[in-house]
Amino acid sequence: MSKIFPIHNSPYNRLQPLPPGGFELRDSFWSPRLDTLRKVTLPTQFTHMEETGRIENFRRASGSSDQPHQGFVFNDSDVYKWLEAASLLSPPRPRGGAGGGVGGVGGDALPNQIETLTHLILSAQQPDGYLNTAFLFDEAPNRWTNIRDKHELYCAGHFIEAVLAAQDDELLAAATRLADLICGTFGDEPGKIASTPGHPEIEIALIKLYRATGDPRYLAQARYFIDARGHGLIGGQAYHQDHVPFRDLDKMAGHAVRALYLNTAAADLYAETGDPTLLETLTRLWERTYQRQVYLTGGLGARHSGESFGEDYELPNATAYSETCAAVAAIFWNWRMLLITADARYADALEMTLYNAALSGISLDGDKYFYTNPLASEGTHRRAHYFNCACCPPNLARLLASLPQYFVTTSENAVWLHLYAAGEFRLPSFHATIATHYPWDGHVRITIDTASQTTLRLRVPGWTLGDARISVNGDPRELHPEPVEGPGYIELTNHWAAGDHIDLNFPMPPRFIASHPAVIENIGRIALARGPLIYCVESNDPHPERLVVDTSAPVQEIPANGLIHLALQAAVTPASGAWANELYRTHPRPEPVEGQTVNAIPYFAWANGAPASMRVWLRTIR
Amino acid sequence: MSKIFPIHNSPYNRLQPLPPGGFELRDSFWSPRLDTLRKVTLPTQFTHMEETGRIENFRRASGSSDQPHQGFVFNDSDVYKWLEAASLLSPPRPRGGAGGGVGGVGGDALPNQIETLTHLILSAQQPDGYLNTAFLFDEAPNRWTNIRDKHELYCAGHFIEAVLAAQDDELLAAATRLADLICGTFGDEPGKIASTPGHPEIEIALIKLYRATGDPRYLAQARYFIDARGHGLIGGQAYHQDHVPFRDLDKMAGHAVRALYLNTAAADLYAETGDPTLLETLTRLWERTYQRQVYLTGGLGARHSGESFGEDYELPNATAYSETCAAVAAIFWNWRMLLITADARYADALEMTLYNAALSGISLDGDKYFYTNPLASEGTHRRAHYFNCACCPPNLARLLASLPQYFVTTSENAVWLHLYAAGEFRLPSFHATIATHYPWDGHVRITIDTASQTTLRLRVPGWTLGDARISVNGDPRELHPEPVEGPGYIELTNHWAAGDHIDLNFPMPPRFIASHPAVIENIGRIALARGPLIYCVESNDPHPERLVVDTSAPVQEIPANGLIHLALQAAVTPASGAWANELYRTHPRPEPVEGQTVNAIPYFAWANGAPASMRVWLRTIR
Repeated sequence: MSKIFPIHNSPYNRLQPLPPGGFELRDSFWSPRLDTLRKVTLPTQFTHMEETGRIENFRRASGSSDQPHQGFVFNDSDVYKWLEAASLLSPPRPRGGAGGGVGGVGGDALPNQIETLTHLILSAQQPDGYLNTAFLFDEAPNRWTNIRDKHELYCAGHFIEAVLAAQDDELLAAATRLADLICGTFGDEPGKIASTPGHPEIEIALIKLYRATGDPRYLAQARYFIDARGHGLIGGQAYHQDHVPFRDLDKMAGHAVRALYLNTAAADLYAETGDPTLLETLTRLWERTYQRQVYLTGGLGARHSGESFGEDYELPNATAYSETCAAVAAIFWNWRMLLITADARYADALEMTLYNAALSGISLDGDKYFYTNPLASEGTHRRAHYFNCACCPPNLARLLASLPQYFVTTSENAVWLHLYAAGEFRLPSFHATIATHYPWDGHVRITIDTASQTTLRLRVPGWTLGDARISVNGDPRELHPEPVEGPGYIELTNHWAAGDHIDLNFPMPPRFIASHPAVIENIGRIALARGPLIYCVESNDPHPERLVVDTSAPVQEIPANGLIHLALQAAVTPASGAWANELYRTHPRPEPVEGQTVNAIPYFAWANGAPASMRVWLRTIR
Repeated sequence: MSKIFPIHNSPYNRLQPLPPGGFELRDSFWSPRLDTLRKVTLPTQFTHMEETGRIENFRRASGSSDQPHQGFVFNDSDVYKWLEAASLLSPPRPRGGAGGGVGGVGGDALPNQIETLTHLILSAQQPDGYLNTAFLFDEAPNRWTNIRDKHELYCAGHFIEAVLAAQDDELLAAATRLADLICGTFGDEPGKIASTPGHPEIEIALIKLYRATGDPRYLAQARYFIDARGHGLIGGQAYHQDHVPFRDLDKMAGHAVRALYLNTAAADLYAETGDPTLLETLTRLWERTYQRQVYLTGGLGARHSGESFGEDYELPNATAYSETCAAVAAIFWNWRMLLITADARYADALEMTLYNAALSGISLDGDKYFYTNPLASEGTHRRAHYFNCACCPPNLARLLASLPQYFVTTSENAVWLHLYAAGEFRLPSFHATIATHYPWDGHVRITIDTASQTTLRLRVPGWTLGDARISVNGDPRELHPEPVEGPGYIELTNHWAAGDHIDLNFPMPPRFIASHPAVIENIGRIALARGPLIYCVESNDPHPERLVVDTSAPVQEIPANGLIHLALQAAVTPASGAWANELYRTHPRPEPVEGQTVNAIPYFAWANGAPASMRVWLRTIR
C-alpha cells in the first residue's frame, strides 16, 4: 500500500472514492481515448513543453541551462499537470491484481519522461523548499510579493497534486517542504504575509496533502486561504473572488475557473471539517449556477471578458466562453458535492459536463484542443495544437487519466455506481463486471463475479425521465420502491451469487430540449440530445440557420464512424434561390422551403473535420 | 461672390451642385436639427475640444502654451472638422438674398470661436507651410516620416476642407502654402518621398482646392496619391487599401472609412479627368458593396476587427461596426456618384444612409454620439458625449451643416430634386418653394414663385415601388412616360407661371423587408420601414426577441413626440411563465404565446431614452 494514497475517509463525505485501480475501464468509448491519451496526447504535450521552454525553465532552475525564463509565470503548472496525468497512467510500481494503469502499453516514453521531469523538478527546488522557476536569480527578490497575479501558489498547488499522483517518496518530501514553507509564510499571525492567492488551487492541493500525510497544518492553511478571501487583501475584485467573503456569495461571479476551483476547495474543506456554512454556501451557489448560468453542454462562464460568469440567463452561443478548464473544474466541484451529499443531481451535472463541455475540448485524434467551447460557430473556431496560455490541454489530460475514479464509490456497506461504462470493479468484498455500450446504448449489465452480501446503489440519470427499467437475473424489479439515498439512486440489496446479473435499461430516444425563455438567443429554438450526449448540426450546406426543425417528425439514429448520428427532419431555406443581386426585398414572399433530412452529430465530436458552421440550438416552430 | 467658392463645373459631372445658399431648408425635420447643431452640438464639441487639449495643442504650436502635446496624432483633424461645420453655419459675410446661414441665431459664440481657432491655426503654421501640432519641437524631426500611420496628410486634408468652408483669404493662403509643401514633398520624382497616406482624405481636399483655385498641381497631386496605392509603398495591407492598385479592386476591403474616402476621392478625380477606368472601378465597387455588404440602414463596415468590411453577406447585427464616419463617408461617395451619373440609385443609397445609419450617430438632443451603429443591442450600447478618438462627432457636424447642398442640383437647363424637405430654392433662373412633411408624409408640393422655362427632374425614391403619383396644377400626369435621365427621375418641362404647383405623392405605407438568405442572422426575420426610415423595436418588456411578427396584420401609424411610431401585431412569448427554476426542459410543450401590439420606432431615434433591448430584424413566420 502506498503511503501517499492511504484510504482517508473524509468524515463528512457520505461517499468514499475507490482506491486507484478499484475500477478498471475496459470499454469502447473511454478506453480508446485513454489509449490515445497515452500514445498521442501526453507525448505531443511533452514535445510542446520542450519547444516552448516550459521544461527548459526547470533546467535553468536546476543549473543545467542558462536560457532566460520563457513564457508566463504560471508555465510551471502545465508541467505539473502533465506529470500528474502521466503518473496516473504510469504508476511507478505495479499494484497487485487491481489493474494499475490503463492500456498496458509497454516500452513507451512516459516513464522516462516522468523520471526526467521528476529529476529536474527536485533539482529546481530551493534549499528552503521554494519551488517556482519564474522567481529565481534576478527575480528571486520578487518571491511571494504578488500572490494575486503571479501564480506562485497556483503552481505550488499543481506541484503537490502531481506529487500525490506520482507516489514518489522523494517528491512527497519535496512537496511537504514546499507546503511547510507556505504554511510558514502566509497567515494572519505576526511575521506572516496576510494574503490569499489570486487563483485558487493551493487549497485543493493542501487538503489532498493533509489527507495523504495526516498533517493538520495543511488543512488549516487551506482554510486560512479560503477564509481570507473577500476582505480586500488582494484588491477586492470579483475576478479573484475577493469581492465578498466566500460564505456571503450568493452567485458565481468573476473568473469562472478561479471560482470553480474555490468551490472545489471549499467542498474539500467541508468534507474534512463539516462546517455547515460551507455546505450551505456551496449548495446555494450550485443551485443558482445550475438553474441560471450553465450551458446545456455543462459549460460554465458566458463571457470572454474576464473569462467570467455573466448575469443570470446570459448564455450567448457563438461567444460562449465555456473554457475547457472550467468544465474540468466543474467536474471536480460536482464530484465533491456528490461525495458529500450522495445527491444524484451532482452526478447528472458531472456526466453532462464530462461528455459534452469537457470532451469537446480535445480532438478525436487527441492532439488538438479548444480553449473555449462555443455552442455556435461559423466554422472559424478551430482547435489548436497548444496555446501560449496552455492551461487546458494538461488539465484535460489529468482529468481523463483520473477518469476511472468517477465511476464507482463506496459508502458503509454499499457500492455506488455513478457513471456507466464497461469494466470491472475489484473491491475487497465485491467483484463484478459491467457490460454496456454506454453512452450509445442505455443497456447496462452488471454480472457478479464473486458471491457477496453487498448493497448496490445504481444511478438513474435524470435524462431518463422515469423510463428506466431494471431486472435482476431477468426478473423485473420495481424501479422506485423508495429511493433511500436520495432521488436518482435505486437500491438493490441481495446475497449475490457468482453469475447473478442485473440489467439496467436507460432508454435513449433522441429528445428535444428547450431553454428557459429568459435565455434570449434560444427563444424559438430547440436542442437535440440522446442519453448524456448533446448534439449539434455542423454543416455548410445547408447552413444550420437555414433549418426549421420539425420536432414532431421522428428522429432516426444512424451509426457512423463509431458514433451515432441523428437524422432530423427540417424545412430548409435555400441559400440564395431567386435573389440574385438583391440584398433586401420589400414585401417578401414566403421563402420556398424544402423538407430535408439533416444529420446532427454529438457536440463533443464537432470541429474534427473540414470547417463548417455549427449550431447546438436550432430554429423550430413551437 | 466668394473667390473660394467659384462655380466650378466639373467637366465629367452630369449634375452640378448648387452654390451655397441655393437651397434653404425650412422644414420641421432637418431645420430643428441644424438649430440644435448650432446651439448644442457645436458649442459642446468646442468645450470637449478644450477639455481634451485639442485646442491647447494649437496654443502650444503657436507658442502660447507650454503644455505637452495631448492625445492622438490626428486630433488636429477634429478641430478642423469642427471649424468646417461651424463655418458652414456662420459664413463670414452675408451673401445677398440667397439666405446664407441656417437658423439665423444672433449673438452666439460660434463666430468668436471660429475667429479664435482661425488665429491659433494660422499661428501654428510653420514658415515652410507645414501644419500639424503633433510634429513640432522634439517631434519635428519625425515630420513626414510615417505618413501611413501618423495622419499628417489626413489632418492637412481636413484643414484644407475647413478653409474652403471658412472662406477666409488668410486661411486660403495658409492652405495653399501647406498644399504647395505637400506637392513639393511627395511624388515619384527624384528628391521626393514616394508614398501615399495611410488614411485617404488629402486627395479629396486637394481636388477641392484645385476647384477653388484652378491650380492643376493640386489635382495632379491627388491623382498621384490615388495611383500610388497598391504598390506596397505603405506595407501592402488591405487595411490601408494598399493591397492592390485602386483600379484592380473588385470589392471594398479593409478599414471602411479609409476605403470610402478613397472612393470619394477617386470619384472627384473622375469628375475632373473623365478617366474611364476610375468610373468602371467605382461602379464595380458600388455594385458589389450595395448588393452584398451594406446594412439595411445604409451602414457600412461589418467588423469591429480593423473597423473593416467583412465578407459578402457578413452582416452581423449586434456586432455591426457601421461606424458613423463610414455613413458620413458613404454619403460623400454616393453624392459624387450621383453627380457623375445622375443615376437615382445613388440618391436612394444616400437617402437611406442619411436618415438611418448617419442620423442614428447623434442623439436627438444633439450632444451624444454613437461611434458604431449596431442593428441589435441589449441596451448596453449607449451614446457617449465624446470619444478619445473623436472622429465621428465633428464629421456628423460638418455633414449636417452642409446638408442643404444635397437636396438640389442643376444640369444644363434642368433642376434636379434628390431629397425632399420643405424649403426654398433661389436659383438665378428658377425660384420655387417646397412644402412637405417628409419624411413623415410623402406628399410634396412644389410651388413656382417666379415664371420661368425650366425642366424639373424629380427623384422618385426606389422605396415607392412604382406607387408614386404626380400632378401639375391638379392634373394627374403619367408618371413614367419615358424617364429620360435614368430610372428614378421623372422629367417635367413647362413654361412655369408663378403659382403653378406640382404635387408629388410618394405613398409611405409601412413595409416589411427581408434580406438575402445568405445573411445568416436575418434568416426567418423581417425588418420594418416606412418611407426612407428604417424602424426598430426598442423594448425591455417584451424583449424584441420574444416577438414573432405577424406580417399579414395591418401596421398602425401612431404620431408620437414628433415622430411616427408603428404598431405591429406579434405573437409574444412570455419572459418566464411556468419555468420557475428550470433552465432546460425536455420535450418542451409549445410556448403559450399572446397576441400583442408592439411599437416600433425609427432607427435613428433609438437609445435616446432608458436603456432597452433593440432589434431591427425581428422574428417572423414566413
